[in-house]
Amino acid sequence: MTVETALADLKQRLQAIDDLHRAEAVLGWDQATYMPPGGAEARGRQLALLSRLGHERMTDPAIGRLLDSIAPWAEAQGFDSDVAALVRVTRRDYERATRVPSAFVHRLSEHTATTYHVWEGARPANDFAAVRPLLETTVLLSRELAGFYPGYAHPYDALIDLAEDGMTVQAVRTLFTELRGGLVPLIEAIRAREEADDSCLTGDFPEGAQQAFGESVIRAFGYDYTRGRQDKTAHPFMTKLGRGDVRITTRYRDDGLSDGLFSTLHEAGHAMYEQGVDDALEGTPLFRGTTSGVHESQSRLWENLVGRSLPFWRHWYAPLQAAFPGALAGVGLDTFYRAINKVAPSLVRTEADEVTYNLHVMLRFDLELAMLEGTLAVADLPEAWRARIQSDLGVAPSDDRDGALQDVHWYGGIVGGAFQSYTLGNIMSAQFFAAARRALPDLDAQIGAGTFGPLRHWLTEHIYRHGRKFTAPEIVQRATGEPLSIAPYLAYLNTKYGALYRL
Amino acid sequence: MTVETALADLKQRLQAIDDLHRAEAVLGWDQATYMPPGGAEARGRQLALLSRLGHERMTDPAIGRLLDSIAPWAEAQGFDSDVAALVRVTRRDYERATRVPSAFVHRLSEHTATTYHVWEGARPANDFAAVRPLLETTVLLSRELAGFYPGYAHPYDALIDLAEDGMTVQAVRTLFTELRGGLVPLIEAIRAREEADDSCLTGDFPEGAQQAFGESVIRAFGYDYTRGRQDKTAHPFMTKLGRGDVRITTRYRDDGLSDGLFSTLHEAGHAMYEQGVDDALEGTPLFRGTTSGVHESQSRLWENLVGRSLPFWRHWYAPLQAAFPGALAGVGLDTFYRAINKVAPSLVRTEADEVTYNLHVMLRFDLELAMLEGTLAVADLPEAWRARIQSDLGVAPSDDRDGALQDVHWYGGIVGGAFQSYTLGNIMSAQFFAAARRALPDLDAQIGAGTFGPLRHWLTEHIYRHGRKFTAPEIVQRATGEPLSIAPYLAYLNTKYGALYRL
Repeated sequence: MTVETALADLKQRLQAIDDLHRAEAVLGWDQATYMPPGGAEARGRQLALLSRLGHERMTDPAIGRLLDSIAPWAEAQGFDSDVAALVRVTRRDYERATRVPSAFVHRLSEHTATTYHVWEGARPANDFAAVRPLLETTVLLSRELAGFYPGYAHPYDALIDLAEDGMTVQAVRTLFTELRGGLVPLIEAIRAREEADDSCLTGDFPEGAQQAFGESVIRAFGYDYTRGRQDKTAHPFMTKLGRGDVRITTRYRDDGLSDGLFSTLHEAGHAMYEQGVDDALEGTPLFRGTTSGVHESQSRLWENLVGRSLPFWRHWYAPLQAAFPGALAGVGLDTFYRAINKVAPSLVRTEADEVTYNLHVMLRFDLELAMLEGTLAVADLPEAWRARIQSDLGVAPSDDRDGALQDVHWYGGIVGGAFQSYTLGNIMSAQFFAAARRALPDLDAQIGAGTFGPLRHWLTEHIYRHGRKFTAPEIVQRATGEPLSIAPYLAYLNTKYGALYRL
Repeated sequence: MTVETALADLKQRLQAIDDLHRAEAVLGWDQATYMPPGGAEARGRQLALLSRLGHERMTDPAIGRLLDSIAPWAEAQGFDSDVAALVRVTRRDYERATRVPSAFVHRLSEHTATTYHVWEGARPANDFAAVRPLLETTVLLSRELAGFYPGYAHPYDALIDLAEDGMTVQAVRTLFTELRGGLVPLIEAIRAREEADDSCLTGDFPEGAQQAFGESVIRAFGYDYTRGRQDKTAHPFMTKLGRGDVRITTRYRDDGLSDGLFSTLHEAGHAMYEQGVDDALEGTPLFRGTTSGVHESQSRLWENLVGRSLPFWRHWYAPLQAAFPGALAGVGLDTFYRAINKVAPSLVRTEADEVTYNLHVMLRFDLELAMLEGTLAVADLPEAWRARIQSDLGVAPSDDRDGALQDVHWYGGIVGGAFQSYTLGNIMSAQFFAAARRALPDLDAQIGAGTFGPLRHWLTEHIYRHGRKFTAPEIVQRATGEPLSIAPYLAYLNTKYGALYRL
C-alpha cells in the first residue's frame, strides 16, 4: 500500500466517523430545541447507538496501522503541515478511544440522554431529588471513565486532559490560586464603592426585538447565517452539524435584556470559530476548535472584550435604544455601559459579571473534584453549594434552581473536566485580544465604527483556521508570542473596572 | 440457542436498525425544515451513511439464520400473533434488502439528498434544466434498483411492490381504467353545471391564525402534541422520529386558506395512524403504517371524508369565521362548503378537488412508467406533462413550477412506485369510512358535534394498532369484510357531488 492509498483510506474512515458524530449533533440539537416530550426515550437510544458506532470505528485497529504507515512520511512534511497534524491528533484520539470499551461509551451516552431529559424538568421544578440518583451514577461513570486512563497523578487529570491537552489538576489549582489572588482585592475594592445601577436592563424587552437586535450584531461580527441559524433552548449552546451548518441557540427573558443578548454574542463567538476552520480539514478530527478553553476564549472575547466594551456601545447603543424605546428611552450610554458591567455577587454563572465570574467556576471545579474524590456525597451537593457561594460571594440561592441544578454540565455529560475551561478561556481571551490590538493599532476605533472584519480576520488567521492542528499552548504561543499568562487578563480587568469604579 | 434467545437477539438487531432509520428521519426532517443552505452537502453524506449502515445491518446473514430458527415456533403462535407477523414481515424486508448492494443504497441516498436540495431551489426558480441531469440519473438508478428484483412481469412491478405488497402495473392499470370510467362522466356532468364560487377562500388569512385554527382541529381529531409537533416546510410531510415523536409539517399562504388547512388535516391523518400503532411493536419493522396506500387512505379520510364534509363544518365553521373575520364575514356555511368542494380542472395535485385528483395521479403514473420504460426522455418530460394535462383536464401550466417540477417525489426519491398509492388511498378511504359508518350509525352526528373519538378508536382498532402486521389487502378485508373495491369510493363521490351539483 502506498502512502497515498493509506492516507486516502484513513481519510475515508475518518470522514465516516465524523459524519456519525455530526449526525449525533443533529439529534442533540433537536433534543435541545424542538423535540416533543414524548421523544426523549427513543432519542436517548438513538444517540447512544450513534455514539457507540463512532467509537467502534475510531477504535478499529486498522486506524492504528494506517497511522503507523503514514507517520514517517507525514512527519517529514513538517510540524505545521496539515498531514503531520492529522497524524498527530488522530493518533491522540485513537489512543484515547481505544482505552474505553464501546459498551461503556454506549452506556454513558444513554445515561447522559436520560439525565439531561430529567434535568430539563427538574430544574424549573426545583427538584434536586429527581436527578440525585442519576447524578450519583454519573459520578460513578465519570470515575470509571477516568479509570480507563491510568498513569495520571490524579484521576481527575484524565478528565481535564480530554478537554485541555496536558492540563492537570495541579496546574489548574496553581493558576486558580494565582488568579484568585488578583480577583479578590479587585472585588473588595469595587464593593467599597457605590453599587452600579443596572435597573435599565430590566423592563419591557420583547423577545422578537431582542432576537432581531442580536441577529443584527452578530451578522456584523461576521456570523454567517447562510451557514448557520439561531434557535431557542433552555441552556444556550453552539453546535456544528457539518461544514456549512454551525448553529447557535439562545434563551430570552421578556423582562430583561442581558440573558438573551450576551448569550447570543457568546455563542456567536463559538460559532465564528467553527465557521472559520479551514475547509481543507473537513471530515478529519482537525475540523473543529482545538480545546474547550480556546473555544471559550472566543465566546468570551466577542461577548465581553468586544460586546461589553465602551467602543462597541458607542456604535450600537443608538440602534439598541431604537429597538427598545420603552425600556431605554432617557437612559444614557454611560448609565447603560455601567449597568452591563456592574460587578456584584450573584447566583447564576452565565449571568455573572466578568470579575466575579471566575469564582463561580472555581466553586464548581472544587465541588466536582470533591464528588469525584468521594469527599462530597451527591446528596450533600446542594448544601455544599450554598455554603461555598455564601463564603465566596456572600450570597446564597434560596433553592437549587440557581444552585446545584443551575448548569447543564453535570446533567448533560460527565462530572469533571468541563468547568476549568471557562476560566482558561477568560485568561486566553485577554491575551489574544491584547495581541490583536498590537497588530491592529486602531482596533478600538474600528469597533467604535461597527467594523469587525479586521479583528475577525486576525482571529481567523491566528486561531480559527487551524482547527485542532495545534494544541492550546501552541496556539497561545503562536498567536501572542508568549506562553499562557494571567497578566493580560488581570491588566484588562484592573484597567476596565478601575476606570468604571474610579479605583 | 433457545427460541427465546434467538428472538431476543433478533429484536436487539432490529431495534438498532430501526434506531438508525429514525436517526436518518431526524436528519431528513431537519433538512426539510430548518437546515441552512450551507448544510446541504454534509447532510447528504450523513444521510447516505446512516442509510447504508441500516442496510448493512439488515442484510447481515445472522438475521436470516435467526428468522429460520424462530419461524416454526413463531408460526405456531398463529397468523395474528405479533411474533408470527414479526417473522413474516422481517423475512420479506430481509429478502428484499439482501438483493440490493449496500454501496447502491449509499449511492442512491447521496444522490437523492443532492437532488432534493437542487429541486428546492429549482422549483421556485422554474429551472427544470437545473434538475434535468440529476433526474436522468434518478431514472437510471430507479431502473438499476428494479433490476435487483428479477422475476416480475414488468420491471416497474418491483418498485410498486416495495410500496404496495403484491400490486402490479397490470393491476393498477385495470383499477385506474375502471376508475377513470366512473370519474370522467362525473366530471363532465359537473362541468355542465354552473361553476362553484370559491372566491371566499382567497383573501386575508394570516399565517398565525391559520396555524392556530389547524392546530385546534387536529387536537380535536386526536393528534397528540406531547408526542409530536408541527413545523413549516416547502412540501408538507409526516415523519416518525421515534415512539412518542411523530411530526407533521405544513406550508401556508397568507392569501389563501386551503393549502395550509387541508394539508394540516392530511398530515395529521398520517400522524394519527403512526401514533396509533401498538407500542408493543416498537423497534421492529412492524412499528409503522403498513403500506403507502393504507397510509394515504388515512390522510385522505381525515382531510376529505371528514374535513370536507358538511357535518364537520356545521361544527367548525363558526370558529373558522371567528378566526378570519376579515375574509369570511358574511360568507355563509353553504357558500363555504361549496367553495371547498369546488370541482374544476387545476394544475396542482395537492390542491386538486376530490374528483379530478385521481387524474393527476394517473398522469404521473403514466409519465413515470414511460420514463422508466425509456419511451419518454427526461428532457421531454415538461412538454409531455403539459400535453397530457391539457388532454386530460383542459388546462396546462405556463411554466414547470406547476408542471414537471411540482411534486417532490421524483426529486426526493426514486422514479416509480409512489404515485399509485394516492389513488389506492382514495379508494380505500371511502371503503374504510363506509365500514366505520356501519359500525357507528351516528357517525355524522358525532362529527357534527365536533366529536372524533369514536371514529379514531374504530380506525385504531381496525387499522392503526396493527402497524405492518397485515398487508393492505388483509387490512381491507379485516376492517371492511370485503376485498378492495372502487364501488364505495364512486358511490361516495356520486352521492356527495350529485347533491352539491344537483346532478
